[in-house]
Amino acid sequence: GPKNLVILDRIENPTAIAELKALNPKVTVTFYPYDVTVPVAETTKLLKTIFAKLKTVDLLINGAGILDDHQIERTIAVNFTGTVNTTTAIMEFWDKRKGGPGGVIANICSVTGFNAIYQVPVYSASKAAALSFTNSLARLAPITGVTAYSINPGITRTPLVHKFNSWLDVEPRVGELLLEHPTQTTLECAQNFVKAIEANQNGAIW
Amino acid sequence: GPKNLVILDRIENPTAIAELKALNPKVTVTFYPYDVTVPVAETTKLLKTIFAKLKTVDLLINGAGILDDHQIERTIAVNFTGTVNTTTAIMEFWDKRKGGPGGVIANICSVTGFNAIYQVPVYSASKAAALSFTNSLARLAPITGVTAYSINPGITRTPLVHKFNSWLDVEPRVGELLLEHPTQTTLECAQNFVKAIEANQNGAIW
Repeated sequence: GPKNLVILDRIENPTAIAELKALNPKVTVTFYPYDVTVPVAETTKLLKTIFAKLKTVDLLINGAGILDDHQIERTIAVNFTGTVNTTTAIMEFWDKRKGGPGGVIANICSVTGFNAIYQVPVYSASKAAALSFTNSLARLAPITGVTAYSINPGITRTPLVHKFNSWLDVEPRVGELLLEHPTQTTLECAQNFVKAIEANQNGAIW
Repeated sequence: GPKNLVILDRIENPTAIAELKALNPKVTVTFYPYDVTVPVAETTKLLKTIFAKLKTVDLLINGAGILDDHQIERTIAVNFTGTVNTTTAIMEFWDKRKGGPGGVIANICSVTGFNAIYQVPVYSASKAAALSFTNSLARLAPITGVTAYSINPGITRTPLVHKFNSWLDVEPRVGELLLEHPTQTTLECAQNFVKAIEANQNGAIW
């Protein structure tokens, strides 16, 4: 059947979209602007458009995240509330109690959900929350028909970690200190994402 | 010296305040209206009033909480963001890097921070977040001079648990099912709070 990849992000990155399209011409890649901090009703509206176009959606990957403990409200809104609201919205289309076909949710959390980087306590706590939420979702699968697992990357050399604010500036060098630990490249990280997605195991914590 | 207990809550409960006053006439009990979901600046303003009046504050107990997974934003705002913001605001008065005297933070989290009640995944995740945040605070004590510990009650027979909404109504009987487990009275719970507060151990998880 036809294969579709829908990218939702606040800002379109045409270069990245073009690269994705070139990688596998059999996959139709579409972009929609989406900010995970919008009210659930707006997410529902966007999902209606997407489901109407694609007929079925198999997998939702919640990957939005920010790392900046000067921005308390925004950290919580993006890393935690955004994942909850996007998940809540898609349940209307997937929930087997409503005649839906079920689905799969892959939430990108973080190892800091288990072991906090305590200099960014708000970020770490938001990831602990996303992880706990994902584990609960997995346990609800018999009721909803929607399975879930979490992917918890370690320190990955993304632009996110080069420089970021600690809570109340408790450690101005937190970014540098972090990179003294073992790190992975974004490619290694992505390859492990693919393994997790192919394994597709409800309740898994990668 | 003079002993003060300041109660902050959304709604004043004069009967409860009167009971507290009668229990120990040596303690001055004061009430201020406070909603933990207000912006940090408002909290700072209230704390300025309180610190000006009392000169010193030794202990902050973050105890606001709601249990209703129909209210996603409010659950996160009260149970997680409220604790973070109130803590962030009091640091201005306590942080030893600013010449402050330090202080103690006791956060009332929940056993669901460790083991979720998966039928209320948003509530459980908000508590996992509050717990993670508290543990990070404790590790920051050498920098800030502010110590912290969490108190994690099990199922307590408060009005909160008699009837509450599960996420997307996945389990309408979750309140009843919960009370089939071992529970404690509010008195037992409070007595254990006192033990934890007297022990006053940085990083403890009660």
